[in-house]
Amino acid sequence: MKNTFGNSITLTIFGESHGPYIGGVLDGLPPGLKIDADYINKQMEMRKPYGDISTTRKETDEVQFVSGVLNGYSEGTPLAFLIANENIRRNDYDGNIVRPSHADYAAQLKYEGYQDKSGGGHFSGRLTAVIVAAGAILREALEEKGIIIGSHISMLRGIRDDEFSDYENQIRMLNEKRFATLSQTAEQLMIKEIEEAREQADSLGGVLETAICGLPGGIGEPWFDSLEGLLAHGIFSIGAVKGIEFGSGFAMAEMKGSEANDQLMIREGRIETLTNHNGGINGGISNGMPVIFRTVIKPTPSIGKLQLSVDPNKMTNEVLSISGRHDPVIIHRARTVVDCLSALIIADAVAQRYGYMWLTGESKWKSLYSV
Amino acid sequence: MKNTFGNSITLTIFGESHGPYIGGVLDGLPPGLKIDADYINKQMEMRKPYGDISTTRKETDEVQFVSGVLNGYSEGTPLAFLIANENIRRNDYDGNIVRPSHADYAAQLKYEGYQDKSGGGHFSGRLTAVIVAAGAILREALEEKGIIIGSHISMLRGIRDDEFSDYENQIRMLNEKRFATLSQTAEQLMIKEIEEAREQADSLGGVLETAICGLPGGIGEPWFDSLEGLLAHGIFSIGAVKGIEFGSGFAMAEMKGSEANDQLMIREGRIETLTNHNGGINGGISNGMPVIFRTVIKPTPSIGKLQLSVDPNKMTNEVLSISGRHDPVIIHRARTVVDCLSALIIADAVAQRYGYMWLTGESKWKSLYSV
Amino acid sequence: MKNTFGNSITLTIFGESHGPYIGGVLDGLPPGLKIDADYINKQMEMRKPYGDISTTRKETDEVQFVSGVLNGYSEGTPLAFLIANENIRRNDYDGNIVRPSHADYAAQLKYEGYQDKSGGGHFSGRLTAVIVAAGAILREALEEKGIIIGSHISMLRGIRDDEFSDYENQIRMLNEKRFATLSQTAEQLMIKEIEEAREQADSLGGVLETAICGLPGGIGEPWFDSLEGLLAHGIFSIGAVKGIEFGSGFAMAEMKGSEANDQLMIREGRIETLTNHNGGINGGISNGMPVIFRTVIKPTPSIGKLQLSVDPNKMTNEVLSISGRHDPVIIHRARTVVDCLSALIIADAVAQRYGYMWLTGESKWKSLYSV
Amino acid sequence: MKNTFGNSITLTIFGESHGPYIGGVLDGLPPGLKIDADYINKQMEMRKPYGDISTTRKETDEVQFVSGVLNGYSEGTPLAFLIANENIRRNDYDGNIVRPSHADYAAQLKYEGYQDKSGGGHFSGRLTAVIVAAGAILREALEEKGIIIGSHISMLRGIRDDEFSDYENQIRMLNEKRFATLSQTAEQLMIKEIEEAREQADSLGGVLETAICGLPGGIGEPWFDSLEGLLAHGIFSIGAVKGIEFGSGFAMAEMKGSEANDQLMIREGRIETLTNHNGGINGGISNGMPVIFRTVIKPTPSIGKLQLSVDPNKMTNEVLSISGRHDPVIIHRARTVVDCLSALIIADAVAQRYGYMWLTGESKWKSLYSV
Repeated sequence: MKNTFGNSITLTIFGESHGPYIGGVLDGLPPGLKIDADYINKQMEMRKPYGDISTTRKETDEVQFVSGVLNGYSEGTPLAFLIANENIRRNDYDGNIVRPSHADYAAQLKYEGYQDKSGGGHFSGRLTAVIVAAGAILREALEEKGIIIGSHISMLRGIRDDEFSDYENQIRMLNEKRFATLSQTAEQLMIKEIEEAREQADSLGGVLETAICGLPGGIGEPWFDSLEGLLAHGIFSIGAVKGIEFGSGFAMAEMKGSEANDQLMIREGRIETLTNHNGGINGGISNGMPVIFRTVIKPTPSIGKLQLSVDPNKMTNEVLSISGRHDPVIIHRARTVVDCLSALIIADAVAQRYGYMWLTGESKWKSLYSV
Repeated sequence: MKNTFGNSITLTIFGESHGPYIGGVLDGLPPGLKIDADYINKQMEMRKPYGDISTTRKETDEVQFVSGVLNGYSEGTPLAFLIANENIRRNDYDGNIVRPSHADYAAQLKYEGYQDKSGGGHFSGRLTAVIVAAGAILREALEEKGIIIGSHISMLRGIRDDEFSDYENQIRMLNEKRFATLSQTAEQLMIKEIEEAREQADSLGGVLETAICGLPGGIGEPWFDSLEGLLAHGIFSIGAVKGIEFGSGFAMAEMKGSEANDQLMIREGRIETLTNHNGGINGGISNGMPVIFRTVIKPTPSIGKLQLSVDPNKMTNEVLSISGRHDPVIIHRARTVVDCLSALIIADAVAQRYGYMWLTGESKWKSLYSV
Repeated sequence: MKNTFGNSITLTIFGESHGPYIGGVLDGLPPGLKIDADYINKQMEMRKPYGDISTTRKETDEVQFVSGVLNGYSEGTPLAFLIANENIRRNDYDGNIVRPSHADYAAQLKYEGYQDKSGGGHFSGRLTAVIVAAGAILREALEEKGIIIGSHISMLRGIRDDEFSDYENQIRMLNEKRFATLSQTAEQLMIKEIEEAREQADSLGGVLETAICGLPGGIGEPWFDSLEGLLAHGIFSIGAVKGIEFGSGFAMAEMKGSEANDQLMIREGRIETLTNHNGGINGGISNGMPVIFRTVIKPTPSIGKLQLSVDPNKMTNEVLSISGRHDPVIIHRARTVVDCLSALIIADAVAQRYGYMWLTGESKWKSLYSV
Repeated sequence: MKNTFGNSITLTIFGESHGPYIGGVLDGLPPGLKIDADYINKQMEMRKPYGDISTTRKETDEVQFVSGVLNGYSEGTPLAFLIANENIRRNDYDGNIVRPSHADYAAQLKYEGYQDKSGGGHFSGRLTAVIVAAGAILREALEEKGIIIGSHISMLRGIRDDEFSDYENQIRMLNEKRFATLSQTAEQLMIKEIEEAREQADSLGGVLETAICGLPGGIGEPWFDSLEGLLAHGIFSIGAVKGIEFGSGFAMAEMKGSEANDQLMIREGRIETLTNHNGGINGGISNGMPVIFRTVIKPTPSIGKLQLSVDPNKMTNEVLSISGRHDPVIIHRARTVVDCLSALIIADAVAQRYGYMWLTGESKWKSLYSV
């Protein structure tokens, strides 16, 4: 449904880079869910530009609640909020020359020139602030239920971070870091690469690895509403994402079944798989193991280097150097978007099964599944 | 919506591996769309087991139309169809020991033992026959509009197929082949690998690369209903798919912006990109270039080799060797599922913009209004 | 979504009057719900033509389950079923002269001649058998939760039935009767009117009053998914329904606020309203009182009397007398459709709040609301 | 989907009576649709309190666009807007004693005390301003296509307005009147009744009759998405509406088929029905005749007269006299809500068939394909 997403819990987003506000409507929350400004602000902070490796556009990104919140708790009615665009410079990138690998040309075809082109308009990465604000509410709610979500930059320009070895503790550690790596060394090497790219008026991408721990088995649907399908549908709304893989993902193309299959064992009274090549999902349904996926973030398309492009109105070939305020990399910011959006999707999937009242009430799945 | 997928054009699927029928309901078709049994049967044939490299379960897979078709044309009302399960052997794999990397254990958690376990029940790959039958109808309709879809096995166990060089002709060629490679040599090497795996009672996966050519720009939505999100949502319903990437996908993690950006030029009066790292989609919207994506198919989980597993009812550790009829590889069959499912998704996305009446050509509303 | 209805629990319907089968797919059921053939058959029986006051087309209306049911319980996967059309006479009403007040002409405009015209095709009242079969499953499930639904013919050709005085007992009584009136006298007078209409080759309609008792408060949503909106949306799918009113409905146009307001009191530790002019719904949400609505069923449009009509293909004026097998009244049959469809809608609304697992598990609303 | 409504064109609403803003997000508009502030303001004006027969709460109801509009035209991206609540008096009706026939008690059951009670919170009639603002955009777009919508107060406290005799001219006349009657005498008598009710600290309701003229045949779907079902679903979101009937509606319960059937004839080369008892809809689909429906508006529940009620927190019986600012009648204001909401629903139904691009006229896909 276009700018509305979700089944039981839905998020509608709106706004443009240089309009007065961006914002969202989060519907389907139970009444009585804690709306914790500190928690939300912390997520907003994590998504903000940061140090030398980000754009110089600064926004306070204060989330102004318009409805659905009273005395710090959700009312159960639509929770609407606004985030002001304060640092607007409409003259930046207002031209008709489309920026390569941005949405400009596709938007021109779709909206026939009526779209707001300034700063990318509705396609601006600024709208991920809306997703973070809404997702943060569900992320905290899931944490209360023992479901925690975290991501690290597993690869950037060939530099690989360490692998997860102790999900829960590492996720808690990552969630305090602005540049999310498990390895200190990897962080330093990655930042060095980013600074080099910035100096070259160029940009970088990378791979994020996300873990969702504590999700009970039995969530998701066979076929069309597989947990993979739901997560992928949502995560691809982030413009920079060009791929997603679950568990061992593309590496499974090289494995044999005997290598790729996750054999099972009873350990301490609990059924577990020995490996997790399937990333915690079989047949579209969670199996109780951590849900693991990786997303590739393409290099930020706004670069200072000269590029060939066109003016689709004049139908002329052009040469373009993008000035304005840009990020040489966004992966460390995209991390929070992926985490918060995942929380929204997971909360919705659970609500399908147990109702949205599940989010505030005694969790019932434990008793149902405790062997 | 669980077993229903799509917005304007929807497919609902049902059935189990060893029930009397599997089937589907395709709704939202315009009236007067050609329902071409030969075209559908050809797609069904392509999905069938084939030669030594597939299961010995044989099904005629005849599509029996129940409603919505009259005299070879869609009526516009729900098109329902059945495919009989003829070659049923309920005793195969009926046990309570869950098969590693199958949906068995996740299904047990979700359905609490009420599910049909025989042959994987509702999770059986047999249901992809339903997707092929429905998708074939839209695939032919899109072809009439100049939108053609095709896939090849781009990698299997380290063997790489040639790359696309001439989409239209290569797609036409691929669509006549049962084992879809561009290179004859790659085909022979791949089949040799598959035969070896079969002899070892093991299995293989691989990577499919799909191209959608002729899709006009402007299709798809920003954010949640990005073309990537819609395609990924659908494609992940195929149980064996564990990853999807668009354009250069995960390889973009190693590129700089100056390498990854698709610069633009006017060629023969038409705007084109010089490269297609974005796979024909920017900001979620088609840009007129071929839409390119790759999906990883995991190795078939049913293998004869001994595996550790559990019986979740008795809560005992077990050792399992899966007998029955299995495919050492399914990627050559999955190819048709991906193609036909993509057709369904693309047709739906176009219908959002231009209405389902678009599929049959000349819009008729003008005459209705011009009284 | 066209021929699919519902949010958490969905029904997809298909089929035509003279095709091989009509059928449906019921998705979103929890696993372990009793699928009680006797209960379903009883509802199917209630919908069947009956005695002298119905069509002579006889169908066994046996519900053949295709998937989703095992050993008498729902699996949780899509429950698909077929009902054979056995008594087919394709030559009946196959002409191009459109039948007044039938869907024929509107269908011609929509489907441009591609629709199956025989017996009304997809518009045939036969498809209500599908709704009854699916709804019966939920109706029984709701009864297990203490939510009972029943209707009586409150008015036919000016003859008024008694009013409800003791919902629970009267609903149980009605649910055993084929011709659902509270008053024996009203039944006799109504049947006399029907027989007269039949002798005159004419037809009658009437008003059904439906009560849903035991529904907890707090079900439904403000604004667009009001319980009134959800029920009305569903109930208007029955072709003969041309109006619906809740509580005192249209009579409230003559009342003052002081007469129409439902004042409240505590009675035996429970909050109740003194009157029920709002039919158990305020602001779209159930308030714990019985949900009451009335639907008007228009006179059956198939009559033997001469009527003016047209042939839209030839664009000629014509005179038509409809032969074939017809019902002089369908209100006594529509009753079961309204009841079963209401059950589907109510179960879906509750599942939004408490999850579909609510239907089989311990009802949680009681503890939440027990004062 | 709770506070989101529509399929192809969707409206999401949010806000509370005494919050900072109410607002909406209208998604699925084509680019290039005229967004005419004057037209919208005129509709907003029509919905406002008026003279002695309305509440004294005055709001400027200025529609502030946040996104989706540029230079007076829709961009095609989500059109978000805010309407400030300026005249806030939070102390009015803030108590725990539930107001009879308001949503207060049902809301308490649903939201468990977390809801904003002030002025009815999210249930406040103020939110209909959001529906009017969004619907006005589509209403004007439909007018450009020759589809016009208008309503009159057909009955109030037993006083009947004249019947429609010349739809187009009468609709144009009504759309200029604040108190929408066809007959001057009826208006005077109705206003006299309203003034009497106000003096008695009481309130009145009435019946609205709405006509949609110029809608082409073939719009709507058989069964679940019947035009009646779609309209009823939407219209029941207006809290005061307790019934809806199409064409002759409930009066058809007294007719015979020979009286109720709409016979057909060719007149001036066009197929028409001689009568319009079916209100322009057969089998859920428009037949080219005016779509006619009537809605009953219940008497405003806020009255000064003493009423019995309860405090659900203390579980005590109470006596209540509602002070504050109230409308003795809202039917003349509800009229605009019904009209604008109908426009939204009709535009969405047409867009299902012809795509949202239909709204702006010449379909452009041809040029895209004719390379």
